Amino acid sequence: MKNSHIIEAQQFNKKALQEILSAADHIKERTERNLPLDLLKGKILGNLFFVKSMRTNLAFDSAMKRLGGNVSHVDFPETFSSELVGGDFEDTVRVVSSLVDVIVLRHYLSGSAKRAAEVSFVPIINGGDGPAQHPTQALIDLYCIEKLKGGIDGLSIAFIGDLMNSRTIRSLTYFLAKYSGIKIYFASPRVLKIQDDMKEYLRENNIPYHESLDHAEEFKEIVSKADILYLTQIPKDHFTNGTDDYGRSREIFRLTPSTMKIMKKDTYIMHPFPRDYELPVEIDQDPRAVYFDLIKYGQFLRMGLLCRVLGVPVD
Amino acid sequence: MKNSHIIEAQQFNKKALQEILSAADHIKERTERNLPLDLLKGKILGNLFFVKSMRTNLAFDSAMKRLGGNVSHVDFPETFSSELVGGDFEDTVRVVSSLVDVIVLRHYLSGSAKRAAEVSFVPIINGGDGPAQHPTQALIDLYCIEKLKGGIDGLSIAFIGDLMNSRTIRSLTYFLAKYSGIKIYFASPRVLKIQDDMKEYLRENNIPYHESLDHAEEFKEIVSKADILYLTQIPKDHFTNGTDDYGRSREIFRLTPSTMKIMKKDTYIMHPFPRDYELPVEIDQDPRAVYFDLIKYGQFLRMGLLCRVLGVPVD
Amino acid sequence: MKNSHIIEAQQFNKKALQEILSAADHIKERTERNLPLDLLKGKILGNLFFVKSMRTNLAFDSAMKRLGGNVSHVDFPETFSSELVGGDFEDTVRVVSSLVDVIVLRHYLSGSAKRAAEVSFVPIINGGDGPAQHPTQALIDLYCIEKLKGGIDGLSIAFIGDLMNSRTIRSLTYFLAKYSGIKIYFASPRVLKIQDDMKEYLRENNIPYHESLDHAEEFKEIVSKADILYLTQIPKDHFTNGTDDYGRSREIFRLTPSTMKIMKKDTYIMHPFPRDYELPVEIDQDPRAVYFDLIKYGQFLRMGLLCRVLGVPVD
Repeated sequence: MKNSHIIEAQQFNKKALQEILSAADHIKERTERNLPLDLLKGKILGNLFFVKSMRTNLAFDSAMKRLGGNVSHVDFPETFSSELVGGDFEDTVRVVSSLVDVIVLRHYLSGSAKRAAEVSFVPIINGGDGPAQHPTQALIDLYCIEKLKGGIDGLSIAFIGDLMNSRTIRSLTYFLAKYSGIKIYFASPRVLKIQDDMKEYLRENNIPYHESLDHAEEFKEIVSKADILYLTQIPKDHFTNGTDDYGRSREIFRLTPSTMKIMKKDTYIMHPFPRDYELPVEIDQDPRAVYFDLIKYGQFLRMGLLCRVLGVPVD
Repeated sequence: MKNSHIIEAQQFNKKALQEILSAADHIKERTERNLPLDLLKGKILGNLFFVKSMRTNLAFDSAMKRLGGNVSHVDFPETFSSELVGGDFEDTVRVVSSLVDVIVLRHYLSGSAKRAAEVSFVPIINGGDGPAQHPTQALIDLYCIEKLKGGIDGLSIAFIGDLMNSRTIRSLTYFLAKYSGIKIYFASPRVLKIQDDMKEYLRENNIPYHESLDHAEEFKEIVSKADILYLTQIPKDHFTNGTDDYGRSREIFRLTPSTMKIMKKDTYIMHPFPRDYELPVEIDQDPRAVYFDLIKYGQFLRMGLLCRVLGVPVD
Repeated sequence: MKNSHIIEAQQFNKKALQEILSAADHIKERTERNLPLDLLKGKILGNLFFVKSMRTNLAFDSAMKRLGGNVSHVDFPETFSSELVGGDFEDTVRVVSSLVDVIVLRHYLSGSAKRAAEVSFVPIINGGDGPAQHPTQALIDLYCIEKLKGGIDGLSIAFIGDLMNSRTIRSLTYFLAKYSGIKIYFASPRVLKIQDDMKEYLRENNIPYHESLDHAEEFKEIVSKADILYLTQIPKDHFTNGTDDYGRSREIFRLTPSTMKIMKKDTYIMHPFPRDYELPVEIDQDPRAVYFDLIKYGQFLRMGLLCRVLGVPVD
C-alpha cells in the first residue's frame, strides 16, 4: 500500500498530521487572498459511493471543483451492468481506478478502504467504511479545533452522545492523543459508552480522560469546563429496555439555552450533522454555535488533502 | 430575504423583468458572436432536487456549464445519510448552501423556495415548488414570446388545456399583466378552468380576458385570433364523472393539421412539455411549431439569470 | 441520418475504421507527450442512460472531461417529470439534444440508437441498445488488438464463452472481416454458439473460421494457437437442461494457470468485464493478462471518437 492513500487514523504520525493541517492553511490563504486555485486542472476525482452520503459526496465534489478539477460519480455500483453477473468489489475498484486520478470511497463494510487500496491504480481516500473509520472527517474536525482555538495542545474536549458508534470520535481521539496537555471527557448514555479499546489507548498514551454515564449533574460540569463540546445524535434503537431510558438520556445530553449559560465564552460547539433533538435550532444564533461556519474550514482541509494525495504542491 | 433570490412571479416589477430579459439578450448576442462565455468560471451551482425533473435539472446544468461554471447535484436528499436520523429541510439547505455559490431548488411542497431563502447562505432559484410557483419557466416563456413576436405589448395569448394546475401559466399571467394592450384567452375543460384569483387579478389590472369552457367552436375562433397558443397536457385523473368527458375534452383542445389551417401565419405554438395527445407529432414540421427551437432561448434566459443572481455583469 | 452518428458496426468501411483508430493514436500521442488536451472545452456531452451501465457511463464521462469538456447526466428519463404523463422516447431525445452537443445513448431496446439519430439535433453515439449493437466497445477492442499486436492483418482471434448474446463479439467480427489474413475461432457451449448469420457473413467474406462446441481438447488447442483470446461470461440461465451442463461448460471455457502454460508468449487475453468464473484472479499477474491495461487504450479511442463526431480535428 502506497503512502498516498488515506485509509485510517492510525496511519498518521504527528508530523503527517501537521503537514495536512498546513496544506489546508495554504489553501485557506489562497482562497482568502483570491489567488488562483486551479491546482488540479485536468484531474478527475471518482466519487465511488456504495452507500448514500449527501454531505461527504457533495463536499468532496465541491472541493475538487474549487481546485479546477473534475468529478465523476459512481453510485451503488454493485450492479456493474444491468445484464451480467457480478463485478466483485476489487474489480470495480480496478476498473474505476483505471479511469480517474483519485477515488473517494464510501462503503458499508469495515476494511473496504484498505481492500480498495490494495488493488487500486490511484490513491484511495476513505470517505467512511461502515462502522470502522472516517479519517477525513476526523482530520477536518482536528483542523477546525485548531482554527477555533489557535492550537490543539492543552485543550479539553468533551465527546457527547453516541460514543459507541461514532467513527469520527474514534479517529479524532487517536489524533488528539498525539498532542500535549489534552484532556478528554466522554459523556454518554451507558448503552452508548465509548469502547474499552479507546480508553486503553488513552491510558497507554497517558492522556487523562473522564467518563460520565447518564449523569445530568456531571454533564453540566463538563459543559462548563470543556473547551470544545463535540455533540452527536443519540439513536433510539440502541435502547433495548423500553423508551423511558431513551427519553431520559436525550434530555440529559442536550444543549439548551440554559446549558449555554454555563458554557465558557470561548467554548465552541461542534456537531458532525445531521442533528436531532440534542442540538435545538434555538441556539444556532449563539456565536459559540459554529457548526455551519466550520463547513468552510472542512473544505480547505479536503482541498489540501486532494492536492497532497495527488502530489500537487499547495504552497 | 435578499433580492438575489428568484422565488415567485410576484417579486418582479416591470423594470426587473426587463432587466432579466435584457441579460438574456446579452448572453444570446455573446453566443451568436462566439464571444467568450466563461463568466461563471470557478463558481458552483448546486442542483438540489427533492423530486425528479429531467428538463429543469438538465437545462440549468447545461446553462451553468455553458458559462464555464460547475454543477453539483444533490438528488432526493431526504435521507441525509444512510445511517442517521433526520436532517430537516432547513439544515439541508444550510449545509448545501455552505458548499456551493447558488442553488436551484425543486421541491414537492408549496413555499419550500421561500423557506430555503430564509436560511440559505447563497441565492436560491425556485425551480418549482409543488403546485405553487415555477417562476423561471414563466420568465423563459416571457422571453420566448418577446423574441418570437419582437415585443410583448399588444399581444393576445391563449392558454389552453389544464389551466387549474399549471404553475407556469399562473406565473406568466402575472408577468403579462404588466404590459400594455394584452388580451388573454383561457380555453379549458370546465374541471380544469383557471382559478378565480387569477381572473380577479386580471380585472384589477384592467387586462381583458375571455374564458371558454369545453366549447369546440369557440376554441377554433380563439386559435384563429390569438398571437400565441400556449398548450398544456390535459390530465385524465381530474375527470371524476367517467371517461366520456375526458375523451370529449381532449378532442376539443387538440391541435391538428386542420386546426393549423385556421391559425394566422405569424401565430406561434408553445408547450412546456412533456406533451400528450394535445400536440400530435404531425404538426412538428410546421414553421409555427417552435417548441423545440425555443429551448435554446430558454438557455439564454437561464444563463442570464444565473449571472444576475451571482452579481456577475453580462454586458 | 447524418454521418456523424455512431450507430452500428455495419456503417463503417475500412477507411472509416482506420480514420477512427488514427484519431485514437493522435490522442494517445498527445497524452504521452503531455500536450494540451482541452480540445472540447465548452462542449457538453449528454450521457442519456435508460439502463444502468457503470463502465460505459463512467468511461465516456471521464473521456469527455480529459478533453476539457463537460458532461450532463440523464439517468432513467422514462419519467420525464414526476407530475406529468409521458414524454415519449423521441421527445426526450429532441429535448436533450437541444441542450447538449453530443449524446451517448444506452437503451434496452434494439434500434433505439437509430431512432434517436433520426430526431436528434446533435450526434448520437450508441453506447449499447439492448441485444443489438455496442459499436463503441467493438471499436475499442479493435484498437486494443492493433496496439497489442502492432497491426490486425494476419491475426487469429478466438472468441470464447457466450457468443450468442455478445453484442461486442458480433460487431468486432464485422470489423475484423475487413482485414487480410484473419482467422477466427468460436469456442463456446452448444447452447451459446455464435448465430448462423455471423458464420454466413464470414463465409461470404472469405474469412476462415473454426467453430468448437463443448470440446475441452479442442479448446486447449485453440488456446495454444490464437493470437488473441477474447473471453466472456457464461450465463447460467441459458442452460435449460439442469445445471450439469453448465458446470461442465464453465470448467471447459476457463483460463487457469495450467491453460496459461500452453498459451504462446505473445498471445493476449481480453475480456469486456465484468468477469465471473472464466477468468480467475490467479492469472491477473501474468503479463499476457492485459485486460486492465487496455482500459487506458479504450479511453484514447473514446476521446478520438468524441472529437470526430463533433468535427474537432485531433492532429
